[in-house]
Formats: sequence, structure tokens, C-alpha cells
Amino acid sequence: MTFAHRHLLGIEPLQPQEITTILDLAETYVALNRQSDKHADVLAGLTQINMFFENSTRTQASFELAGKRLGADVMNMAMQASSIKKGETLIDTAMTLNAMHPDLLVVRHPHSGAVDLLAQKVNCAVLNAGDGRHEHPTQALLDALTIRRAKGRLHRLNIAICGDIAHSRVARSNILLLGKMENRIRLIGPPTLMPSGIAEFGVEVFDDMRAGLKDVDVVMMLRLQKERMDGGFIPSEREYYHRYGLDAEKLALAKPDAIVMHPGPMNRGVEIDGTLADDINRSVIQDQVEMGVAVRMAAMELLARNLATGAAV
Amino acid sequence: MTFAHRHLLGIEPLQPQEITTILDLAETYVALNRQSDKHADVLAGLTQINMFFENSTRTQASFELAGKRLGADVMNMAMQASSIKKGETLIDTAMTLNAMHPDLLVVRHPHSGAVDLLAQKVNCAVLNAGDGRHEHPTQALLDALTIRRAKGRLHRLNIAICGDIAHSRVARSNILLLGKMENRIRLIGPPTLMPSGIAEFGVEVFDDMRAGLKDVDVVMMLRLQKERMDGGFIPSEREYYHRYGLDAEKLALAKPDAIVMHPGPMNRGVEIDGTLADDINRSVIQDQVEMGVAVRMAAMELLARNLATGAAV
Amino acid sequence: MTFAHRHLLGIEPLQPQEITTILDLAETYVALNRQSDKHADVLAGLTQINMFFENSTRTQASFELAGKRLGADVMNMAMQASSIKKGETLIDTAMTLNAMHPDLLVVRHPHSGAVDLLAQKVNCAVLNAGDGRHEHPTQALLDALTIRRAKGRLHRLNIAICGDIAHSRVARSNILLLGKMENRIRLIGPPTLMPSGIAEFGVEVFDDMRAGLKDVDVVMMLRLQKERMDGGFIPSEREYYHRYGLDAEKLALAKPDAIVMHPGPMNRGVEIDGTLADDINRSVIQDQVEMGVAVRMAAMELLARNLATGAAV
Repeated sequence: MTFAHRHLLGIEPLQPQEITTILDLAETYVALNRQSDKHADVLAGLTQINMFFENSTRTQASFELAGKRLGADVMNMAMQASSIKKGETLIDTAMTLNAMHPDLLVVRHPHSGAVDLLAQKVNCAVLNAGDGRHEHPTQALLDALTIRRAKGRLHRLNIAICGDIAHSRVARSNILLLGKMENRIRLIGPPTLMPSGIAEFGVEVFDDMRAGLKDVDVVMMLRLQKERMDGGFIPSEREYYHRYGLDAEKLALAKPDAIVMHPGPMNRGVEIDGTLADDINRSVIQDQVEMGVAVRMAAMELLARNLATGAAV
Repeated sequence: MTFAHRHLLGIEPLQPQEITTILDLAETYVALNRQSDKHADVLAGLTQINMFFENSTRTQASFELAGKRLGADVMNMAMQASSIKKGETLIDTAMTLNAMHPDLLVVRHPHSGAVDLLAQKVNCAVLNAGDGRHEHPTQALLDALTIRRAKGRLHRLNIAICGDIAHSRVARSNILLLGKMENRIRLIGPPTLMPSGIAEFGVEVFDDMRAGLKDVDVVMMLRLQKERMDGGFIPSEREYYHRYGLDAEKLALAKPDAIVMHPGPMNRGVEIDGTLADDINRSVIQDQVEMGVAVRMAAMELLARNLATGAAV
Repeated sequence: MTFAHRHLLGIEPLQPQEITTILDLAETYVALNRQSDKHADVLAGLTQINMFFENSTRTQASFELAGKRLGADVMNMAMQASSIKKGETLIDTAMTLNAMHPDLLVVRHPHSGAVDLLAQKVNCAVLNAGDGRHEHPTQALLDALTIRRAKGRLHRLNIAICGDIAHSRVARSNILLLGKMENRIRLIGPPTLMPSGIAEFGVEVFDDMRAGLKDVDVVMMLRLQKERMDGGFIPSEREYYHRYGLDAEKLALAKPDAIVMHPGPMNRGVEIDGTLADDINRSVIQDQVEMGVAVRMAAMELLARNLATGAAV
């Protein structure tokens, strides 16, 4: 297996075969998590600290379960926004935790780049659990595993990513990963929610959802990130749903076996029709959650191995 | 042993011999918890998630310790009231957790019936840690174990339940359990805090505490649930204590060896005299807390066995 | 080894050789924590409960990691200030937890003496994680270990403790410990932040920092405890830094190899110059954090041994 990194800060530095390595290992954890005894000892004796500077019940829970099932000592730090007003204080906090000798540090932070900065200061492996509008690598990996299992492959697929692209680290990490694996990516959304310069990434851009969904294999909906739209355009939910919300009628334009994805938590009736979200013939939204735990177990195992052998770049 | 359920949602569906099965198994955990090494491995490799939509330091702690001592991976989810405004969101949250493959889900929710609803949607065993005014089965079980240990039996006892019956899931679960075990139950409280139609349960109702306490073996006080008295009658604490607070003088009307119970946390000087609450010759309030951990260990072990064998209804 | 106590409530009751026993054992945990596998089983099967009535991310994390690495079942209780308005309620909370049979109870409380009071009521070992202005024994122990490692000894050193002495339990525990080990202690700070009657402790008092720092081996800065200065004098930060903040120029008056300490979290530019705090040739602030986990592991192991043998006073 090949995975030569000290940290998992983003999809950008990963080679395609490294992505495959993570997904292949994650498959073994999908199987483990479906057993009664869900325990492996690959992180036994190691310390995992979760530092979430933004609330995220589901992502933190996923990392916490992943670590506990692998036998790590897992500690959650409640980092309040108020305690991190200055960049230097983030570093002070990181240095303090670093002095307690964690092996794995899982960090979510509202500022793009904050997790990279932190990784430069500490001795342990850092996993980015989402930083600002930058990257959310484990989300892209769990999406990739979900697609690979549903479609039988992770290349030469037509994949539409729909909604608030501009504010979405999920979109950014997915564009990077799916591009590296040689898929055709379409971005669909209102021009106001489309990042400038996005064409450089080799994607097609649509503002008409019906045109964009035509013949795609995968429809990946995004969450409206109102909390990141500081001062900018905020669409009305009703208008947004009419034009960009996914329903059965719009989905009919995609391939007949196209799958529907959403990173959650969903705004039902805004980004997606509730009935469609629950339709287990089309929606793989629950699979995404399941794959999340497995992918995080795999990523942490690979980083822990590199810690032990020093085989990281 | 007999215990043929997939979930522990309430006392209502339990047979008397199933109650006895839980209490007998709990006795072994009372002994274990008094040892230096309090560890058993019966839940090793399993995942327990505590979802408390209402704060409850003591009940959550009791379930958390129960699971950890049995070797489970235990995760607490901080569910904020704000994140569950709609019924569908409760289900979304449950489905998300379900996709992470927990084995045991411990749920407290402010709405009666919410835990039953959730249990229908998930693949794991669900334990109701209190839902609205409906049921709180582990509280009734720990009360039953406390009574059985103090009185040497759990049948043909005269038991008074006193206070805010109408808002109390503790009262409801206790009435069901103690009735199944063939005890004589008296409910004592102001008519405004007595549920309508309560006579159907085969209980005697008193609004005069002195009359109600006469010759009882067990005096079970309840907490005033002001947080659930939305818009209704709220008694003054002073008046309430005068008429329905338990003190030595009122207790003198019960049998000389009557025991005093309270589910906690106590409002001293409102529901009960503080000195009486601390009198270890009469009060078994600390025993109730101790029995709570043991009863929860037993219930989780039985549910986990049924998960493994599929022997549940 | 000698350590004959049931609780660790303060430095005051400790004999010098007991302090040495803790520090020597802690050295083994410094080594363990630097390994990949950081696990020992000395607390396996035991239950540790952390009750923090004041927020303290770093101290709670340190105790939590210490317990988990030693194999204990660790439970954090979120004790909100609102739930502890009356002294009796603190005791009720303690009695409730006590009934759950913890082995180790780690308590932080805003009121001096609250932890001692609580220790009298429970059956387990209690560790004081800071009570009001009274004591913070594990902080003094980790400071002592840091000094001993940096200076090669823990006696006949000139040690300056600088800043807000009056409100500081850190200062108080350090004065007691460093005095017992026969060091010369100087207290430096504005007269308004100096406790009355402090001369009884055999210390020298300075209000001129330059005079106080002359030829010291150790400069221990304190955090400004504004939250404890109820109604009293609060210095302006700018004025405070000018007179009592540590910078390179003032430090030049100390011995050339003097070390700089701070219990954290730091107010950079108020108590200490940020560049100096980060200068690994002078600052041992990160070492203090590292020693904290090790010292807490040692203290908990010693208390657990005494629980098992009953060899406590």
C-alpha cells in the first residue's frame, strides 16, 4: 500500500493511488462496522484529540467512533469560538495540546488554512475535518467510496455537484478528488454561488439545473451554507428550491440509475425533496454516513502507521 | 432467563418474570460495582450512543458508567433543543446515527412517544431514558430493585407515590411496574397534579397526605416538574411543602420500617425535609442511585444478547 | 515509596519525601508518554469522574488523558454554575456520584475549601484540581517536576513568583511546595495583588520587579485572574505589562540560565512578552504542560494503590 503523508490536510496533495489505498482499506472497515464486535486494535495505546472550533455533531461523532473502534484513547475538546479570537491563540492551544503528546489531532476550524498552519506546529498527525471554504478531505473520500460501491467504479463517470459551490469545502475537495480519478464534473448553481476562476479546474459550469443534470451518473447536492455567506447574496429558500432543489422531475433528466447524494445535514424542501432523500432506490445519503466512519478509520490507520515508521513526506 | 425484547421502551410491555430477570441480573452488577475492578466485558466491541435531548446529568452519567464498565465504546451526543424543531429532523438525526452502526442507543426526549417513534426507524436496540410524561423504565426498575433489597420482596407491599403525579413519567412507569408485581399503590397529591382517569390503573387516590401514608411500607416522593407545567397550576413551594412535603411527622403515620425514596435531584424543603432525606435509617435515596447503574448494566446486557441471537420480539 | 494519603487536596499535608515520591513516579510517565504506545493498566477497572465546576479546558484535558492512558474508565461531568447555588447541593451532587462508586474524583470548584468538604463525604479518592484561591496541588507538582528537570535539583534555588499573588491558588501551592523543599522564594507584584500576612510563609516580598528578579534561577509568571478580582483593584493591562510583564530586558537581571514559567493560558503582552514565551532556550512553558499529564498519572496511581491497600491516613 502506498500512502506517504504525515497529515491528511486535503485532497490536493494526494496521488490517485493513495486515494485508492484509503478506499481499499476503508472497505475492510465497512465490513467490520457491520459485525457485532466492531473492535480492532490498530490504534491501541495511541491518543486521538478532536478539536472542533465549529460545531459539527455528525462529523465529530464519526471521527470519535472511528477512533474508539480502533482502540485509541479519544478526547473531545470543546473549543469555543470565543477562546480563539487571535491566530496566535490558536497556535497556543495547539502547542499546549501538542505537549500532551497526542498521536492524532482531528481539527475543524472556520478559517481556511488554519488547519495547515496548525499542522506545521505540532509533532503528531493532523486530520483536517473541514477548514473554512478550503478542504474537507474525509468528506470527499467518503463520497468517493459511496460512489465506487454504487457504480462499481470511480472513473469516467458524469458527476453533477449542485448548489452553493462558492462556500463549500465539500465541493472543493470533491472536485479535486473526482478530477484526479478522471471523472467529468459539472457544477450547477446560480452564478452568485459559483466561485470565480472555477473553469481552471476542468469542470463544466451550468446555471440551468435541467441542462446540467442531463445524463449524469451521480447527483451530489450541497448544503446551503448560510453561515458562511457574510454580507453576500442569500437566495430565498422557495426560489432556490424551485430552481436548484432536487426533486423527482429534475432527477428524471439524469441517467435512470443515477444516485443522489447529500453531505448532510439536509434542509429538506430547500436543497432536496424529502421523499426523494428517503428513497433508498436512488438516495445513498445514509450510505455516505456509513462510509464516513470507515474512511476515517482507514485514514487514521494509515497516518498512525506512518507515525510509527517515519515513512511520511 | 427470559427477556424477549429488542428495545426497552417502557415497563408496559414487560412480563413480571422479565422484570425479575432484569433485577436478578442487576444484583450481580451491584456486587461488581462494589469491587475495586468494576469491569466486565459483556459489551466489548459494541457501540453505545447516548442521545439526550433534555439535560440530565445524573441519568446520562449512570448510563455512561454502565456502558463503560461493561466494555462498550460509549459516545455522548450533545443534542441541542434548537437542532430538533421538527419531527422529521429527529428522524434524520436518528437515521444518521443508525448508519454509524451503534448497537445500543440510549435516548431521552421531551416529547412523549418520541423514543418509540425513533426505535421503529433504527436497527439497534433502543433504551428509553425518559420521554415526556410517558415512561422512564430504568427508573422504575432501579426503584424496584431498591425496594426488593430493602423489603426482601417486591409484592404485596403498600406503596405511596406522592406529589406531582400528572407530569411524572417516573410515577407512570412505577405504577405500571409495581402493579404488575401485585403491590397496592396509593397516589397522593393535589387534585390539580393528579392525572385524569388514573383510577383505571387500579390505584387509590388521596389528596390528604396523612390519610394516604397510613401504614405504607414505601414512601416514594416525586420531583416537582415545574419545567413541564406549561401554563397550568404551579403551587407555591411553601404551601406545597406544608401539605405534601415529607417530614418526620408525616412519615410517622407510615409503618415504623417504611422506607423513603426520591428519584432526584431533590428540592430540599419543597418535596422533602433535608434531614429526613439524609437519614440513612429511613432514606434509600443513595441506594436508588447505586441500583441505577446496576439496573442499566443488566438491561443493556440483556438487549445486547438479544441483538446477538435475534431472540427479540 | 511513601505516600500515605487518601486524597490529594493540597500541598500543605505532604511531606517532602512524599513530593519526591510523586515526582519520581511521574518521571516514568514522562517516558511512557513519549512512546508510541502510551498505555499502562494501573487503573484498569477503576472509574475516574472529573467534576469541573469551573471551565478549564487544559487541566480537565490533562486529567482526562492521564486517566485514559492508565486504563481507567473516565467520565467528565459538565457541572454548570447554575446547578450549584447552595452548599448542600454540592454535597447532594457529590453523594449522588459517590453512590455510583467512582474510585477517583477530580474536582475543580470556585470556592476555597469546597473540595475538602466534598472529600469528607465520599468513599473514593479525591484530587483537588483547583479550589478558589486555596490550592492547586497538581499544578505545583508539575511546576516542581519541570524545575527539577531543568535545574537538576529542587532545593536551594532562588525562585521568583510574579504577578497576581493574592488571587492565585497556583502561587499558594507553589509557595508551600517550594518552601518545603528548601528553596528561597521571592514574591513580586503590586501591593494591591499581594496577600496580607504573606511574610509568615518565609518569603521575600518585592514590588519592584527589577529588584526581585536579581539573580534568580526560576521566574514563575502568573495569570492575571480578573475573574476572581470581584470589586477590587484591576490594573490596566498596559501599565501592568510595563511594570510587571516579563520581557527580555527584565529577564536579563536574573541568572543567565534562569528559566521562565507560566501556568497558562497566557495573556501575551500582559504578563509576558510573546517572543520570550516562545523562546525554547528560556521558556519551559510547554514542558510544564507535558509534566502535567505525567504528574497527574503518578498522583492517581499512588491514590489508587492506597485505595486498594487501605494504607492511607
